[in-house]
Amino acid sequence: MAESTNMRLRLPLLCIILEVILIILFGTLVEYNDDTHAKLWNENRTDSATRNDHENEFYYRYPSFQDVHVMIFVGFGFLMTFLQRYGFSSVGFNFLIAAFSLQWATLMQGFFHGLHHGKIHVGVTSMINADFCTGSVLISFGAVLGKTSPVQLLVMAIFEVTLFAVNEFILLSILGVNDAGGSMTIHTFGAYFGLMVTRVLYRPNLDKSKHRNSSVYHSDLFAMIGTIYLWMFWPSFNSAITNYGDPQHRTAMNTYYSLAACTLATFAFSALVNPEGKLDMVHIQNAALAGGVAVGTAGEMMLTAFGSMIVGFLAGTISVLGYKYLTPVLESKLKIQDTCGIHNLHGMPGVLGAVVGAVTAALASPDVYGHGLQRVFADVETGKWNPQSRGGFQAISLAVTLGMALFGGLITGFILKLPIYGAPPDTHCFEDGLYWEVKTFQAHYIQRNTTKALTASFSERGWLDTEGTKAL
Amino acid sequence: MAESTNMRLRLPLLCIILEVILIILFGTLVEYNDDTHAKLWNENRTDSATRNDHENEFYYRYPSFQDVHVMIFVGFGFLMTFLQRYGFSSVGFNFLIAAFSLQWATLMQGFFHGLHHGKIHVGVTSMINADFCTGSVLISFGAVLGKTSPVQLLVMAIFEVTLFAVNEFILLSILGVNDAGGSMTIHTFGAYFGLMVTRVLYRPNLDKSKHRNSSVYHSDLFAMIGTIYLWMFWPSFNSAITNYGDPQHRTAMNTYYSLAACTLATFAFSALVNPEGKLDMVHIQNAALAGGVAVGTAGEMMLTAFGSMIVGFLAGTISVLGYKYLTPVLESKLKIQDTCGIHNLHGMPGVLGAVVGAVTAALASPDVYGHGLQRVFADVETGKWNPQSRGGFQAISLAVTLGMALFGGLITGFILKLPIYGAPPDTHCFEDGLYWEVKTFQAHYIQRNTTKALTASFSERGWLDTEGTKAL
Amino acid sequence: MAESTNMRLRLPLLCIILEVILIILFGTLVEYNDDTHAKLWNENRTDSATRNDHENEFYYRYPSFQDVHVMIFVGFGFLMTFLQRYGFSSVGFNFLIAAFSLQWATLMQGFFHGLHHGKIHVGVTSMINADFCTGSVLISFGAVLGKTSPVQLLVMAIFEVTLFAVNEFILLSILGVNDAGGSMTIHTFGAYFGLMVTRVLYRPNLDKSKHRNSSVYHSDLFAMIGTIYLWMFWPSFNSAITNYGDPQHRTAMNTYYSLAACTLATFAFSALVNPEGKLDMVHIQNAALAGGVAVGTAGEMMLTAFGSMIVGFLAGTISVLGYKYLTPVLESKLKIQDTCGIHNLHGMPGVLGAVVGAVTAALASPDVYGHGLQRVFADVETGKWNPQSRGGFQAISLAVTLGMALFGGLITGFILKLPIYGAPPDTHCFEDGLYWEVKTFQAHYIQRNTTKALTASFSERGWLDTEGTKAL
Repeated sequence: MAESTNMRLRLPLLCIILEVILIILFGTLVEYNDDTHAKLWNENRTDSATRNDHENEFYYRYPSFQDVHVMIFVGFGFLMTFLQRYGFSSVGFNFLIAAFSLQWATLMQGFFHGLHHGKIHVGVTSMINADFCTGSVLISFGAVLGKTSPVQLLVMAIFEVTLFAVNEFILLSILGVNDAGGSMTIHTFGAYFGLMVTRVLYRPNLDKSKHRNSSVYHSDLFAMIGTIYLWMFWPSFNSAITNYGDPQHRTAMNTYYSLAACTLATFAFSALVNPEGKLDMVHIQNAALAGGVAVGTAGEMMLTAFGSMIVGFLAGTISVLGYKYLTPVLESKLKIQDTCGIHNLHGMPGVLGAVVGAVTAALASPDVYGHGLQRVFADVETGKWNPQSRGGFQAISLAVTLGMALFGGLITGFILKLPIYGAPPDTHCFEDGLYWEVKTFQAHYIQRNTTKALTASFSERGWLDTEGTKAL
Repeated sequence: MAESTNMRLRLPLLCIILEVILIILFGTLVEYNDDTHAKLWNENRTDSATRNDHENEFYYRYPSFQDVHVMIFVGFGFLMTFLQRYGFSSVGFNFLIAAFSLQWATLMQGFFHGLHHGKIHVGVTSMINADFCTGSVLISFGAVLGKTSPVQLLVMAIFEVTLFAVNEFILLSILGVNDAGGSMTIHTFGAYFGLMVTRVLYRPNLDKSKHRNSSVYHSDLFAMIGTIYLWMFWPSFNSAITNYGDPQHRTAMNTYYSLAACTLATFAFSALVNPEGKLDMVHIQNAALAGGVAVGTAGEMMLTAFGSMIVGFLAGTISVLGYKYLTPVLESKLKIQDTCGIHNLHGMPGVLGAVVGAVTAALASPDVYGHGLQRVFADVETGKWNPQSRGGFQAISLAVTLGMALFGGLITGFILKLPIYGAPPDTHCFEDGLYWEVKTFQAHYIQRNTTKALTASFSERGWLDTEGTKAL
Repeated sequence: MAESTNMRLRLPLLCIILEVILIILFGTLVEYNDDTHAKLWNENRTDSATRNDHENEFYYRYPSFQDVHVMIFVGFGFLMTFLQRYGFSSVGFNFLIAAFSLQWATLMQGFFHGLHHGKIHVGVTSMINADFCTGSVLISFGAVLGKTSPVQLLVMAIFEVTLFAVNEFILLSILGVNDAGGSMTIHTFGAYFGLMVTRVLYRPNLDKSKHRNSSVYHSDLFAMIGTIYLWMFWPSFNSAITNYGDPQHRTAMNTYYSLAACTLATFAFSALVNPEGKLDMVHIQNAALAGGVAVGTAGEMMLTAFGSMIVGFLAGTISVLGYKYLTPVLESKLKIQDTCGIHNLHGMPGVLGAVVGAVTAALASPDVYGHGLQRVFADVETGKWNPQSRGGFQAISLAVTLGMALFGGLITGFILKLPIYGAPPDTHCFEDGLYWEVKTFQAHYIQRNTTKALTASFSERGWLDTEGTKAL
């Protein structure tokens, strides 16, 4: 068994081959864009007397990029450390597949979103977009967390990034819809792709690892680091690639209010669905973020703080209810084992966000937006645009995304099912010791078992002071 | 007893009612401001040929906002995780009351600081101000930490935010004083409000929970995450809403030097007041931050790095001495049970900051400030201003703040004393298990008691290798 | 023995004396620069009609500064918390020496980099430079981690900051070379200085503390907080003080790609060098960062994403191989006890970065850079410049840096060897309890020893359920 999960050759081989391919493709296809190229930036400058270095897009996008970057690596990474024996893998594999995905995404997105004389131009905006695509892969990672080898995860990333770029191209370039914060392209796509993958990889005997599929006190605190960073920086995420000026400013603020309202809903329903009225860390860690997902499409529109708060409140509510009532059903009836509950955090709130986006777009009018209309809805100028058709295209986009995600997840799932990747056996899921040097592994086990044996033995003899255990 | 702390109805009911009220008030009262409104921002633009999207206040305030946001949610949240069994509540209730307070503060501050045709205008500056007001509530939370239910905390927030807005209005709009970093409005107000609340809620039998009112090794490390984030981003906090240009730049730098000097004072006095010369994590976690509090008023003035370092050094010194000598007296003589020692971190340094601000304002002169004078001291242009009267108004503001805080805390304390909120019993303060699902709660207790019983039993028999315990 | 490590007088005395000296020197030597001075900023403005507050350097440097600040205090601080019983000291002493070093560096760098009429001018750029210099001291701290008292560390910082400023002056002002991200000035200097100090402080009996010189499960997760923050913000670090516009933008992007490629190399080689193909947290925590170090010099040049990825891949590879094969040899043959393995993270990748910088500079041409050439290579305008000589000067700078670091470390090491600083005995290295109040220290020891004794005793009797220990 130890043989089958040995990564000594598989992981290095895959990593090195992938990185060599990436380096070769970057060498042949990637160039600095106008804002990063020493010659182009300074040539252009001489053409225009008023242009100066302060106008480089770096100063208007880079702070947003850094916030997004924190969400990808700290936010997603630590959010998944809630498992008691899977912290190294959560933050470590998150790190690995994100570092790969952002490189691969640069190529795929560059290829689909417009080559310049056969070359891909890169700068801070392409860095944000690559991080966005990476986010989608990390959402899917949440569904299969604890049940996959790092090799499987890298293979999943190869396919998911590619399909993400295709879907994004269809939505943004062909259908021309709005989705700045990615309710559809990132969250809906990532969630349903991941759910389909975990469905195909269904493990009937996962119960054998059940005792490790839960948190301990400190692992929940580590996960809260991830939660809080995602929550704080979500306004930056949704606004990172909107147009400059009022759209970016408005998106950040709408997201801020949506998340605040979502948090109150989360605490309310978490206590309400518990027989003793106790709050559940799973809800707080996840559902409180659904408000950010649900304004990912409409955030840049004139949704108002009022509208944002309603959307956020709804998102928090359905997310908690999903964790409580839907997740168990998905596993028992549909055989979908969704470790992190991404259906509740990204799936349903993503669909809600797409619907809210379609409705808000359909209600848009020059009365409300004035001259700002064309700066939110891109094809206004061409005259092809009217609010109702725009709303329709937004709705079609949701359907396309769901189709792409489910189909892509299906194919990818079957590819990942091949018995060549060193996947963990059912008895050793959710366990760092399989892929990591964990020095204290044995000590932990001994201590736990000792304590168990002693507790039993001493209880019998009445030695054990049971005040503490009876207290509550 | 379990009945009395059950949150199943109380917490959801309060959260939902509050959020519904907030949503209705936002729907009727709140509008986008000029920089976030699609129509207004783009209309204004056509009036002025030179104006462009890069001038939107978003690009000059949002990075500061995000730093402040991190302080509110990660800084305050994790700083309070030092308690061994109260990490979920520290970071979780911090999250809940902050998410509520920032919405409520938007309304209260908007109401007092100027309606526009009956409407409250929101943008990144109002978001920063709402976060500031929230900070004040979180300071008070530190005094009652571990002894209050989430329902009590929300009720406290309702009253404190309201009074904060009134006090802020008196200081900034009526008296017209300076307090950009909130030495008075945020720290002094939050500290003395919280101290008065905890005084009214005095628990003579809190000793019953004494064993939980302390840290363990890893909880102190989690708390250091909070400390370091507060420390690093304090320059952004103090400078977030100053005028653009030199005042903002100067404030950040003065705060940076004040904190650096404060840190050396903290380490020095922490070792000095310990009989064995050992450093105390409580001091490092808290007193090292006092330097940021103490330049909250004078930071935007021409305090110089030299002046800032003196103030920071003093702040660190009085804060450590307060933790060592004053906190025990406050509890034994004045019956003030101050869990986090907010009197040492926010109370005394806040008063020091107010005094430093008054003196620095009284010494301000056109010789030093040149044309920059009116950009720091707002009513210079009207001719009403002279340095001495300005210093006097600053001092009066401190008195007003103390009065408002103590009176408000008194009233709020008595309201919170009503036996309807599910407050924890004296025997179960500082305990997450009361309001949270803590799966491993029982295991912890068993393990601790087992270890205790065994240690005693084995020591008697001489089985226990005591090398470790004697070593130091 | 307890006597000899008592910090009650030594630490306060040193901290207070140092801070008083700093305050006096700041009072006599330091002034606000043009962008932070109320008078100067607003005077200058009247000279130029187009200048406005938004052009204050604060808005273009401060976000970078904050990212660097996070790396210094959270990044370095938490990276070193991997030791099981040294978390307080790692993050606490990091905090202390950084707070001291940034003040002292402001004076030293200000003195060498140009006085203005006998005064040192400070603003956000000097704050970034001071943080950079501090980073160098923290690198050296990594080599002696666990084996030095806080007094020793402060004394080391006094000397290291001074020599850093001299070396930086030689490189940047006399030789006029490029080193924006500090491959030479920060990483190579800090690494070889620290290695020489730890060589002089060699402890032949360090084995006595061997059982504490390792990580436990949660301490490795705390360390990952440090790693991820360093990784995410390294693009800001390398670009923080480049020229505005394309150089800053390009540097951030080159670093981003270098780090991504480095991460894949790190995972690949970490699995490859382990007999069971298991990943080692030490490698992931450290080697994945080497890509940032290695583009510290060439990052601002036209290295391209392609070049950056090659450099990053190489850096990750040599860093992992260094941890695996070189570190044990350095200790056994050269008597260099390098706690954090700074030779692998900062030493070799720093030298690699210097070489890459020299080569890239030697290949620079107007064809590639256009009018941007003089904005990257400062003395182009004077006509003295040609690519080959520039490459030569870059190489000479590496030699100068190595010489300064080794010589400075030698002298400083002998000064730190004096038996007056309260250094820990060989038996109590890597132990917080020596300098910190650790309330649970005794409990930990008892529990560990109890468990040990019981495990042995119960195993004999066959009581112990050994399923867990055999499982893997």
